[in-house]
Amino acid sequence: MTSYTTPAALRAATARGEWRQPTAGLLDGYQQANLVVLPQSDAYEFLLFCVRNAKACPVLAVSEAGQTEILMGKSHIDLRTMFPRYRVWQQGQLADEPYDLLDCWPDDAVAFLLGCSHSLDGALRRAGIPVSLAAPPVYLTQISCQPTARMQGYVAVSMRPVAADKVDEAVALSAAYPSAHGTPLHIGDPTEIGITDLAAPDFGVFPGVHPGQVPVFWACGVTPQQVLPALGSAYLFTHYAGHMLVLDDTVEHYSAQLR
Amino acid sequence: MTSYTTPAALRAATARGEWRQPTAGLLDGYQQANLVVLPQSDAYEFLLFCVRNAKACPVLAVSEAGQTEILMGKSHIDLRTMFPRYRVWQQGQLADEPYDLLDCWPDDAVAFLLGCSHSLDGALRRAGIPVSLAAPPVYLTQISCQPTARMQGYVAVSMRPVAADKVDEAVALSAAYPSAHGTPLHIGDPTEIGITDLAAPDFGVFPGVHPGQVPVFWACGVTPQQVLPALGSAYLFTHYAGHMLVLDDTVEHYSAQLR
Repeated sequence: MTSYTTPAALRAATARGEWRQPTAGLLDGYQQANLVVLPQSDAYEFLLFCVRNAKACPVLAVSEAGQTEILMGKSHIDLRTMFPRYRVWQQGQLADEPYDLLDCWPDDAVAFLLGCSHSLDGALRRAGIPVSLAAPPVYLTQISCQPTARMQGYVAVSMRPVAADKVDEAVALSAAYPSAHGTPLHIGDPTEIGITDLAAPDFGVFPGVHPGQVPVFWACGVTPQQVLPALGSAYLFTHYAGHMLVLDDTVEHYSAQLR
Repeated sequence: MTSYTTPAALRAATARGEWRQPTAGLLDGYQQANLVVLPQSDAYEFLLFCVRNAKACPVLAVSEAGQTEILMGKSHIDLRTMFPRYRVWQQGQLADEPYDLLDCWPDDAVAFLLGCSHSLDGALRRAGIPVSLAAPPVYLTQISCQPTARMQGYVAVSMRPVAADKVDEAVALSAAYPSAHGTPLHIGDPTEIGITDLAAPDFGVFPGVHPGQVPVFWACGVTPQQVLPALGSAYLFTHYAGHMLVLDDTVEHYSAQLR
């Protein structure tokens, strides 16, 4: 684990290339953010997709076209260096997985910062609902996204095992955190949402579901990465899964702006 | 009051020109919606404004450009006739206040349905917090909107007097209704948000604040109507204040999609 004690210190170290690891379990309580960057000409399509799929894609901030920094609270976030790792698509094809985007930030690039369920994990833990410090497993489902004219696909979900007698509390609690994907999309039988083998997640490691526990599924920030490449934008940059931006303010702060 | 017992019956009567009155207090519990229509070329700017000012502008739905109808649940909503009254701006100047838009729906028109605080009133009443059946008074404040490149201005708020010992409950309850503007923006002293005379609202009628009551201020759907004309779009259509669309589903249904 890192010894960085503030989000600013972690971001500075990341920008210097000293931190290239996942951010699950780091700096509990602070809002973490996913990244999507695409050309201005596709920004309306994607923003509309976010609005229509608010649980999967809670929008924390949108940059002005071409700007490499965005002001979040009192901090200037360098969008090109402050995520530990990135992914780069060109015309819908994965092209690179670099540690910064210093060499490629087009003049028409618009960046979206989206809420992340890592921020939910801390809130659940603080409320006495045990959640692993590791990133939760992620599954592709057969739940259709609300489409736009040029974007369609299926919702990805993260799964956390919750003790049966704590499920109601987990649901009520997560309603307070729309910036961390809000209430679950599904509770219980994974086959009802098209997951045939819970032990074989599409991303991450299956932690097991023990007797007395129920699998609870939340909308996941992996969703736009599944849907966006088919849009075929000239370029698309995202964070590398699990490698988020950690912001100065808490998940409570960002969620309060959405409810 | 109307005798229409379902939203569909009210909308059909409205489309026939038989209902041209405000919708406050009608069909308690159903989601009511505000309207903004503007050219596709300004749709991104306005959608971004909505996302940045989510409490004032909760987005329920966005139409495809040029479509005169939008599917909400199982109902096709005719955007040109199912609001009791409309307002029309041209190049930022108010030009007309018609009862339908049948004569003017450009091929590039994009319609936004936005959540409305009328839906909050019913939820408060059902929880035992008395709220007038009349529309609440609306005030322009000195609270700045989160601007976009071409849109800036001040948040408008609606005010409801709440018994001092019910304020906490009203706040907690309204957090569950992001589609009806969610939690209050301000509680108490109106001068702190730039309202110099509570008895003189900018719109509507001041109901009085009795001893033991506290004025509570929620973000209001009048906000975009205050900010949008300065954008100077070739055309801008909105509902006429207080004259909303009533949808088939409840405010609980729409709020559940946002949290």
